[in-house]
Amino acid sequence: MTHRNDRLATLDDLPEPDEAARMAVAQRASEVLRPQGALARLDAVAIWLAGWQRTSRPHVESPAAVVFVADHGVTAEQVSAYPSSVTGEMLRALREGKATATVMARQLGAQLVVVDVGVGRPTRNLRHEPALSQEQFRECFAAGRRAVAELDTDLLVLGEMGIGNTTAAAAVCATLYGGRATDWTGRGTGIDDDTLRRKRAVVAAARRRVGTVTDPLEMLRQLGGSELVALAGATIEARARSIPVILDGFVVGAAVAPLSVARPGVLDHCLAGHVSAEPGHRRLLGLLRMEPLLDLDMRLGEASGGLAALALVRLAAACVSDVATFSEWGIRQ
Amino acid sequence: MTHRNDRLATLDDLPEPDEAARMAVAQRASEVLRPQGALARLDAVAIWLAGWQRTSRPHVESPAAVVFVADHGVTAEQVSAYPSSVTGEMLRALREGKATATVMARQLGAQLVVVDVGVGRPTRNLRHEPALSQEQFRECFAAGRRAVAELDTDLLVLGEMGIGNTTAAAAVCATLYGGRATDWTGRGTGIDDDTLRRKRAVVAAARRRVGTVTDPLEMLRQLGGSELVALAGATIEARARSIPVILDGFVVGAAVAPLSVARPGVLDHCLAGHVSAEPGHRRLLGLLRMEPLLDLDMRLGEASGGLAALALVRLAAACVSDVATFSEWGIRQ
Repeated sequence: MTHRNDRLATLDDLPEPDEAARMAVAQRASEVLRPQGALARLDAVAIWLAGWQRTSRPHVESPAAVVFVADHGVTAEQVSAYPSSVTGEMLRALREGKATATVMARQLGAQLVVVDVGVGRPTRNLRHEPALSQEQFRECFAAGRRAVAELDTDLLVLGEMGIGNTTAAAAVCATLYGGRATDWTGRGTGIDDDTLRRKRAVVAAARRRVGTVTDPLEMLRQLGGSELVALAGATIEARARSIPVILDGFVVGAAVAPLSVARPGVLDHCLAGHVSAEPGHRRLLGLLRMEPLLDLDMRLGEASGGLAALALVRLAAACVSDVATFSEWGIRQ
Repeated sequence: MTHRNDRLATLDDLPEPDEAARMAVAQRASEVLRPQGALARLDAVAIWLAGWQRTSRPHVESPAAVVFVADHGVTAEQVSAYPSSVTGEMLRALREGKATATVMARQLGAQLVVVDVGVGRPTRNLRHEPALSQEQFRECFAAGRRAVAELDTDLLVLGEMGIGNTTAAAAVCATLYGGRATDWTGRGTGIDDDTLRRKRAVVAAARRRVGTVTDPLEMLRQLGGSELVALAGATIEARARSIPVILDGFVVGAAVAPLSVARPGVLDHCLAGHVSAEPGHRRLLGLLRMEPLLDLDMRLGEASGGLAALALVRLAAACVSDVATFSEWGIRQ
């Protein structure tokens, strides 16, 4: 597989966080007008943000969300509660400001970019064959990178929409980490018991099909959808540009997990916005050693959990950067 | 105790939520462009909000936070990591826009009202005598009511600041619900082991002192600080005006818990914004049957956890009210 090194090359020479900025914010967090550690996790978030924004006064002033949308050949297996055509309808709703993510982004003053990476051009059925060709994989990865390269943002939320994509996510995770197909396969959009049984069988079969593959990104090509590959590309481009990222739910997590297995630490610029109701997500975040900011049983996708978290990350930044210190306020600490 | 009935009279004849508004929002939540139940808790929050805002299209357009501030005689027992004088300094910082809550409120576009109900006029030492006289209790309760009566808001966050007030909160809870003093007594602002031992002894002694009291509001008078009593008054005034309330942390919970024991259901207009790091808070929310929206180990007070939750409640409202339904969008559900 001559392509392997080409792919992994993108995972090297990526920037590390600005340690001086992190230390400065940690110091300031211990000096602002509140008891040491009183904001706990929010202070940690501000420190994380500062490291990637490369500033000692982190703020969120130009947040953005990118939602990648694509169709999936695996929907032929009847694994979703909705027909595949809903993907295209939701693409239109996202673009015309009528979907949940658009409403959330507007409420938060965040830019929302919706990227079609395969609506009307479904992947092949991952149960029986590789979902994407080598060329399609490269194109989708590049589309993800390009979407981020074109943004001007200081905090990026990554999300997705695509009927059938929790099947792809479960197949990627089961192959990447092992465990039973049932551990990784959930009800997605809200499928009934029969559909869940079919979905588990598809995940198990897909995993058997790629049993000899060891390269994490090859697993992503074989099992992931177009939007999952784009999400992986977007995440790498954000890292290359030192843009902090909030990951949405299970599908986004599954899309970036192969990067982490291929090169541990490559997701250090990513924060898990929430843990979803999809049972595989909590398991996945544990393996990624990510502690989600929110735990609200959401299971929508569209970047919605990440956008909810964005509101808190913005507060976390302000709570260190804009609160006076004890000494500025003339109190001995 | 002739005053008892006067007090409890304020807990009767309070409005119930608008069931038609709740049902309309529950219906719409099942029809908007996402899988049924995909926003889970956020949909439930929108339904709760609609019931108290008395509208089928809930929004948060004029949020407010009220922070009650007071000094505590129990600080003579050396139960805090900070001297009592910090209360007055923080009152000034809150008023002049330099404290955490003011920064959060500004970020969220929420009005912040800071009410001094006893800075420089500490309660008596609850270890040895009733913290407040009957008259002081009535004044503080009325001050809380007045603060809310003067607001124009569609969502209210209640918070507090007062060095020594987690001791008062622990004493109220231990007396109201039983359990060991150690179960209710935490590190507050971040006290060391010796101080924690002293604090537990104070809580245990205070509880013994009021051992024969059975009236929950009398417990609040005997053990609560001025700001706790004001918080109870504010909560009742909000209920009388059908204003939905987000409760901040342990101290706010302890302030309103006596109302709930006196008249179950009286806190139905209240949502627990978060569960704090103070160990008594999780226990208290369990007893109040409130599920917190956030779990971030915060332990600041000042309404900070409630303000963080406000960001999510506002999103929850928009996600039902502003997202198109399947039929509006021309898709058969």
